[in-house]
Amino acid sequence: MSKKKTTFNISKTNNFSEWYSEILNKAEIVDLRYGVKGFVVIRPWGARIIDKMYRIYESALRCTGHEAAIFPAVIPEKNFKRESSHVEGFAPEVFWLDKKQGDERLALRPTSETAFYEMYNLWIRSYRDLPLKIYQRANVFRNETKATRPLIRSREFHWIESHDAFATKKDAEAQVRDDIVMTEEVMHKIFGVPFLPMRRPQWDKFPGAEYTIGSDSILPDGKVIQQPSTHLISQHFVKAFDVKFVNEVEKERTPWLTCYGPCMSRILASVISVHGDDNGLVLPYTIAPVQVVVVPFYGEDSKKVKEMVEKIQKDLFGEHIDVRVDDSDKRSGEKFFYWEMKGVPFRVEVGEKELANGEVTVFIRDSRERVSVKVGDLVESIKNLGAEYDSRLLARADEFFEGKVVECKDKVGVKKALNSGKVVRFAFCSADVEGAECAGFVEKELEARVMGTRADVGEKVVGKCVVCGKKAGVVVYVGKSY
Amino acid sequence: MSKKKTTFNISKTNNFSEWYSEILNKAEIVDLRYGVKGFVVIRPWGARIIDKMYRIYESALRCTGHEAAIFPAVIPEKNFKRESSHVEGFAPEVFWLDKKQGDERLALRPTSETAFYEMYNLWIRSYRDLPLKIYQRANVFRNETKATRPLIRSREFHWIESHDAFATKKDAEAQVRDDIVMTEEVMHKIFGVPFLPMRRPQWDKFPGAEYTIGSDSILPDGKVIQQPSTHLISQHFVKAFDVKFVNEVEKERTPWLTCYGPCMSRILASVISVHGDDNGLVLPYTIAPVQVVVVPFYGEDSKKVKEMVEKIQKDLFGEHIDVRVDDSDKRSGEKFFYWEMKGVPFRVEVGEKELANGEVTVFIRDSRERVSVKVGDLVESIKNLGAEYDSRLLARADEFFEGKVVECKDKVGVKKALNSGKVVRFAFCSADVEGAECAGFVEKELEARVMGTRADVGEKVVGKCVVCGKKAGVVVYVGKSY
Repeated sequence: MSKKKTTFNISKTNNFSEWYSEILNKAEIVDLRYGVKGFVVIRPWGARIIDKMYRIYESALRCTGHEAAIFPAVIPEKNFKRESSHVEGFAPEVFWLDKKQGDERLALRPTSETAFYEMYNLWIRSYRDLPLKIYQRANVFRNETKATRPLIRSREFHWIESHDAFATKKDAEAQVRDDIVMTEEVMHKIFGVPFLPMRRPQWDKFPGAEYTIGSDSILPDGKVIQQPSTHLISQHFVKAFDVKFVNEVEKERTPWLTCYGPCMSRILASVISVHGDDNGLVLPYTIAPVQVVVVPFYGEDSKKVKEMVEKIQKDLFGEHIDVRVDDSDKRSGEKFFYWEMKGVPFRVEVGEKELANGEVTVFIRDSRERVSVKVGDLVESIKNLGAEYDSRLLARADEFFEGKVVECKDKVGVKKALNSGKVVRFAFCSADVEGAECAGFVEKELEARVMGTRADVGEKVVGKCVVCGKKAGVVVYVGKSY
Repeated sequence: MSKKKTTFNISKTNNFSEWYSEILNKAEIVDLRYGVKGFVVIRPWGARIIDKMYRIYESALRCTGHEAAIFPAVIPEKNFKRESSHVEGFAPEVFWLDKKQGDERLALRPTSETAFYEMYNLWIRSYRDLPLKIYQRANVFRNETKATRPLIRSREFHWIESHDAFATKKDAEAQVRDDIVMTEEVMHKIFGVPFLPMRRPQWDKFPGAEYTIGSDSILPDGKVIQQPSTHLISQHFVKAFDVKFVNEVEKERTPWLTCYGPCMSRILASVISVHGDDNGLVLPYTIAPVQVVVVPFYGEDSKKVKEMVEKIQKDLFGEHIDVRVDDSDKRSGEKFFYWEMKGVPFRVEVGEKELANGEVTVFIRDSRERVSVKVGDLVESIKNLGAEYDSRLLARADEFFEGKVVECKDKVGVKKALNSGKVVRFAFCSADVEGAECAGFVEKELEARVMGTRADVGEKVVGKCVVCGKKAGVVVYVGKSY
């Protein structure tokens, strides 16, 4: 019996759930033994990926005119109460502190609209103060009653929330579109996580929003997870906080607000799930904590190898490439397996024989190819290989994603497709309140969720609602989710 | 009557308290109107300084072998209860959540030893796991009963906490010394904030520590604020969490733990206070949110000026210098005043006349000098001027600091010195428990605090305790604090 030699040896395709739990543990991404439901310890390997993701996202936000701020983690109860749908939506999930301020309870933020808007009431006076685009990098807290799942659904998570204010609805809606573009540019193009931009049905929008556009990515088992959402806040919400400004002709107006919330810990879940393989993690070069591991092979002239390893380390470090030398006394097979499992994109093997030809070997994690590279070209080669690496990961993720979305014409087909791990596209009566009953059927009978309608492109609607048979008004996407 | 023309016009020397409150507001560092005692909004100008400080501190930690992790903000009550002095020390300050886990209360972390050690119990098995050096960037919460003061004493603050484990006490004590070196290298040398490294008296150590070394910086009014502390954790604490490892000869041993806690929001208070002047903020070049502001002066040929401004912006940005162009329709005087008040180190004035000579004018915030620089040399000049700027700020801060510390021989002298805003050095009976009574006198009668004894140098003890007249055992430093 031949056994395929892998470091990790769990099939991602056949047993995604076990694969996911095991890789989080083996690669030391998180530790689930902290002892409080829904609160996990993110270990250094996970924390460094998250930190790199934060830096890229923050730099994208700054480039589009956003400024960082740091708001309190605590929000007075009165702020929540100002807007009825918001308090209804979030109240059950709020952790309150035992110490009050006077008679008033203090909430641990589940999201910070009601903290930001309290200040926007003070900061926004005139059209000259607009647009105001402020974000924060923050931990938020929700007392999830559903089963929690590490990085995917936790009671504390680590995100960015951006709260923007504009003079006109047109400007605000342009921002909503820009938020989708940012999700595309950062989460898709850089982190390699494809998604569907979905305008949520009326019954599934953010509590307090006029509308919500979510981005849904797909896990290897076909389950959908919601990634960054962007919301056009309802004017009722804005008025509840009495945010107003004086326009160019001295008239008082209400600004239009948007918010956007990319969650780093959750995007990490997608990054791990989308790119990993049966040997463990595969991480995009751009966000890998270690981009290159150098493994020396000492022969007769260990001094020569040692010197070269030091030179390579220095050269790569000098070009801001995250490099680590594995000089431990482990067997080389063990080292190889370990760093493959951890998802390091490139392993540089430095041995005496090759050095005589002025060469080293580069092992490429995803394709498992080995290439010889001249020592003098190594830095440039790594940069080029890194760019190619990320393109390849992205193309592979896109291909998988496209294969996961299918079209169906009837209930039987939908059910079958959902049960075989697909996301299904079909004609549906309405994404407004009238459609809620059919959505209920999808939820109960098909154990799936109406994700919404495409926010990026218009789709031609033909025929009847697959559920109720009435004239179809929209094309929806439906998937199972955790 | 001649009136000195300033943007801000409050004397830092004569009225520090008002100066501090006003500059936080005017420079938009924090907003105090959030409405919850001890929780402030850190606005973009403050948030960007804090972010730069975090990046520098985190890079220093990584260079010394530390890895980042992200621990939960919530700690189960049982963790606290494991070590009696820790729970006694922190229990009154803890915010508890309303939702329990079974019967157990959940605390919002006031500090995270009891979260980290719970995991160290699992992560540390063998001498091969040591040293273990992990830090996190985190918000922590303490229900301060004393009066709060923005950035100096808040109920939520933003720090780094590093928790290290070693095989021997010797290694751990070396880390404590390394922590002081890091405070010196980062807070003093880079941020320009001088401090006294103080070994705290027994009655003032961290709850659960064998000993604590704090670093005290001095505000312009002579009041002392505690900056990063480092602690050698008591073996009792370590044993309470049952952290142990097997050494090289298979014997079970208890590791030695240290922790270090530089608080970015509080260091920012010192940075602002130490460097600022009567015109507003003065910020070290290295951590200024905007390092160069470019002000164009349009004359007849506005196109030429515009092109040059764009070129300068691009050149500086290309060298990672934070540059902003003030192209607003404000009067130039207004622009000058505004950016000086905000503490931008350099203003580059681009006007037609000078451009004819291929020159621009650089205004230097701290010295208020103006120098002409060839356009082609601007990037290099800014870099050099930036380095000189920070050296100058540091030298000025050191000079002020040294003048603030005086020696006294008797109670009358001490009292007088304290009341004139000095930190006083004098002979004292003991920093062990026997000295607590004399420390009580200092606190009650002199309204000051025994900061401790020098941790960096040995000091010769001569004569009698200034308070009780018994033989002196130590030289202490005493100051008033907020």
